[in-house]
Amino acid sequence: MAVTTSGETTLFVCVTCRGQTTDAGHDEQPRPGTRLLAAINSTLDALREGLAIEPVECLSNCNRSCTVAVTAPGKWTYVLGALDPDLHVEDVLTFARLHRAHEAGLPAWRERPEHIRKNTISRVPPLPSRTPEEVSQQ
Amino acid sequence: MAVTTSGETTLFVCVTCRGQTTDAGHDEQPRPGTRLLAAINSTLDALREGLAIEPVECLSNCNRSCTVAVTAPGKWTYVLGALDPDLHVEDVLTFARLHRAHEAGLPAWRERPEHIRKNTISRVPPLPSRTPEEVSQQ
Repeated sequence: MAVTTSGETTLFVCVTCRGQTTDAGHDEQPRPGTRLLAAINSTLDALREGLAIEPVECLSNCNRSCTVAVTAPGKWTYVLGALDPDLHVEDVLTFARLHRAHEAGLPAWRERPEHIRKNTISRVPPLPSRTPEEVSQQ
Repeated sequence: MAVTTSGETTLFVCVTCRGQTTDAGHDEQPRPGTRLLAAINSTLDALREGLAIEPVECLSNCNRSCTVAVTAPGKWTYVLGALDPDLHVEDVLTFARLHRAHEAGLPAWRERPEHIRKNTISRVPPLPSRTPEEVSQQ
């Protein structure tokens, strides 16, 4: 099992997300979050593109699941929600690639997929050794 | 201006949050997010308690503002929302203290203030050098 290296972009994928249309009677089936993880891994199989995919149990965005978080050392962290494993894998990966390419992890608004623009749940600055002024300017 | 040291618990406070009851005609007044920052700093003046308070412009939780984020090196990051600067300063600080006291930044559910339990917007694991199994066990 691969170990995350410290410098790469990490995409956390909540595998316990039930999505927006869960049938409570089918708990034995893979959850939408688990299907999202599988779809992302499948899409990336040929070329990992410097992305580490990490399953995680609960990103505390249950009301607007499925959910992923994109982060990297020294960059902003973005939580993205309302993801359908059948519809939004490419949107997630597009955003992750933009995040990886931007020095501070702040993809340009106009370049973000529309679904991501409308379903960004939260973002958090990197933990720095810097002044509040520098924080507020990012 | 103090510089954040790398080991302490940081409370990011969004100073651009408009809160839930903004009067659009009063933009010249301090925004609720700015008032929340002032209230937190005022409450902590006597004893900083190992908390670094950092203003930040937009945590992308505008629909459920006011918003803060609590994090520390090697710990989970929590985004908390629907905060009223007149009502929830103690709830925020209680959660921040619990987060600081817990090795992984995972306060026990039963100890979290009720408003925080009901208005946790998202959480994200620390960026680690570890296996997916370790991530999922936290």
